[in-house]
Amino acid sequence: MYKINANYQKLPGSYLFSTIAKKVAAFQEANPEKEIIRLGIGDVTKPLSKSVIDALHKSVDEMADAATFRGYAPDLGYDFLRNAICENDYKKRGCDISPDEIFVSDGAKSDSGNIQELFAEDNKIAVCDPVYPVYVDSNVMSGRCGTYDMNSEKWSDIIYMPTTSENGFVPEFPKETPDIIYLCFPNNPTGTTITKSQLQEWVDYANKNGCVIIYDAAYEAYISEDDVAHSIYECEGARTCAIEIRSFSKNAGFTGVRLGFTVVPKDLKCGDVSLRDMWARRHGTKFNGAPYIIQRAGEAIYSEAGQREVREMVGYYMNNAKTIRSGLEEAGYEVYGGVNAPYIWLKTPNNMTSWEFFDYLLENANVVGTPGSGFGPSGEHYFRLTAFGTLENSEKALERIKKL
Amino acid sequence: MYKINANYQKLPGSYLFSTIAKKVAAFQEANPEKEIIRLGIGDVTKPLSKSVIDALHKSVDEMADAATFRGYAPDLGYDFLRNAICENDYKKRGCDISPDEIFVSDGAKSDSGNIQELFAEDNKIAVCDPVYPVYVDSNVMSGRCGTYDMNSEKWSDIIYMPTTSENGFVPEFPKETPDIIYLCFPNNPTGTTITKSQLQEWVDYANKNGCVIIYDAAYEAYISEDDVAHSIYECEGARTCAIEIRSFSKNAGFTGVRLGFTVVPKDLKCGDVSLRDMWARRHGTKFNGAPYIIQRAGEAIYSEAGQREVREMVGYYMNNAKTIRSGLEEAGYEVYGGVNAPYIWLKTPNNMTSWEFFDYLLENANVVGTPGSGFGPSGEHYFRLTAFGTLENSEKALERIKKL
Repeated sequence: MYKINANYQKLPGSYLFSTIAKKVAAFQEANPEKEIIRLGIGDVTKPLSKSVIDALHKSVDEMADAATFRGYAPDLGYDFLRNAICENDYKKRGCDISPDEIFVSDGAKSDSGNIQELFAEDNKIAVCDPVYPVYVDSNVMSGRCGTYDMNSEKWSDIIYMPTTSENGFVPEFPKETPDIIYLCFPNNPTGTTITKSQLQEWVDYANKNGCVIIYDAAYEAYISEDDVAHSIYECEGARTCAIEIRSFSKNAGFTGVRLGFTVVPKDLKCGDVSLRDMWARRHGTKFNGAPYIIQRAGEAIYSEAGQREVREMVGYYMNNAKTIRSGLEEAGYEVYGGVNAPYIWLKTPNNMTSWEFFDYLLENANVVGTPGSGFGPSGEHYFRLTAFGTLENSEKALERIKKL
Repeated sequence: MYKINANYQKLPGSYLFSTIAKKVAAFQEANPEKEIIRLGIGDVTKPLSKSVIDALHKSVDEMADAATFRGYAPDLGYDFLRNAICENDYKKRGCDISPDEIFVSDGAKSDSGNIQELFAEDNKIAVCDPVYPVYVDSNVMSGRCGTYDMNSEKWSDIIYMPTTSENGFVPEFPKETPDIIYLCFPNNPTGTTITKSQLQEWVDYANKNGCVIIYDAAYEAYISEDDVAHSIYECEGARTCAIEIRSFSKNAGFTGVRLGFTVVPKDLKCGDVSLRDMWARRHGTKFNGAPYIIQRAGEAIYSEAGQREVREMVGYYMNNAKTIRSGLEEAGYEVYGGVNAPYIWLKTPNNMTSWEFFDYLLENANVVGTPGSGFGPSGEHYFRLTAFGTLENSEKALERIKKL
């Protein structure tokens, strides 16, 4: 008789955003007349830009003609896209990364979930708390996290690094040395970030202690301050300790288009074994490349026009962020983030729990946000709003919140 | 110090098709004047059909307009596609499958590689021999296969079920009872298949012995004979023992478009645990949906025009198969497959090994095929040619082969 992977049974409840979706659907059904504003899930609302649309139409036409039709893509991505990424995201920032260290995928979520496969089951992971749930859940599914304690809302074998207003949202080096460290800056969910010199300290720590850093830089396009690194490879020594995961979702609005990439430098080795080669093997075995037309769409954002469009899109959302942030401040909330990231992280008023505030906001302002506690125990009493709505909705949401 | 997943180190050499690609590239470099005909990898050559192209352009336009733009897709797939699949691929064939048992993905290769995650590490898998390498390699990566013996070319903990001309390419029930049985019919690589009543025996065997069947039906559109099941759910009792993986790659030419789906029936349970719910959790955690525009392209093949185009495309390739098959027979080869599948499986002449014949064919006919031994030890002395080239190339290749 076959047996299932028992680790799945350890996962408590369902995925955060499914729970929110159900609650919102129930509220809307009970209150069909209410106009709900969704500032919860980090999904973009602006349409794809002209360069991207043009590239999609053009490549679709290529697929209609036998002479230009493309079948299976190279497992690791087309050279035209890997070269464009290398040139624009790395070389231009002075990072020593080559195209064959760049692996194109169907998105940062897949890569974030799959990357743990490269590591032994008995590695110990460290995560910031609060944290993007995928890092934790994917490790739980692989049996790397021990058991879940309902009271503390923590896994016995995970090292949690609280990032709260108390430490300025800068994680401290943990007492116990981890094997794998997940870092995401600018951070989801807190919308805060750390400086380049603080990131350098983490790189030094990882190299000194034999750790791998999984660096999620999905929000790098939102960085507005000079002393923040856009890539971990801006730090000295990162090639021997860091994997970087990047996304096209938030800079180019590709949430429904699906494109991302992961960088695994050749210098990242465990003894003689190249993690780059392991990831290449994984890609070659369990993935069949991102669609040709979508890789062409990704390439388009690196043209001059494409880069201008990205700046415009990011600028639009960051203006929303400013609207939300300043509105909340006017309303007397304690607010973080929203300067280098499209997320605003607020402290709930009157010591409400995150879910209490979720219900309160949904019922009284008909605004959907994300409860901070859904991202980890240190997210309790915090709440996330995203800047990915329209300006009109962001303004309207804040008007409603100010009236509460 | 972090440790890697040591199972990756057990994998011998590199992935079959990478090796072939390297050999062909080396030959071409040494012989730049030779015109190589590629009948190796199972990649299609015909462009996307009109309905698909129209659907792509239309949905790209939707993505250009804020009013019709789509962000994150539902993790499990859009209803419009799941409903179309359910109606056309299942209901019309009398299979009791509902849309919420259908999970849309970025392709059958990903699903084939990922599905093993649902099972405990100490499950024993059975595979046909020869076999599509992804089933084996993905299980090796998860530590489910023991150790590899270079001499026998077998993994110590895999149950191999030889399918050769001796048993008419119909696998026999293994002596040792497996937990998970991978079946692919019509078969890749042999191009042969089994009858519906033979498949029913496997379903009965699985239900009786507590096995799960992972049924890869990627080539179902190529079935031309009446007594062959298009879906395992045509067999009684399959809902309690079978997962089915399907592809848009070979029926609609989506190898570079990337779309597939997996069916996990709600009746498939291990004790109280629903494998459907486990797969939903995996999709929700490690995957973010297939692109909207590509799901619309998938939907298009189910329209009346789309279905006609699929039949035309399949008909074209099957005419190639006939050309290759009859040409090889005329040339005196022992040939299998090519009737219900786009693969032709031939016995190498003069007891050549599969790789010897690969080199012989590449050097003397400049035709690329796939060595049968690359698919498993029982594939030795066999060789695969695919019908996915153009008719002109298929004819030209056979002319060259006949002259050898």
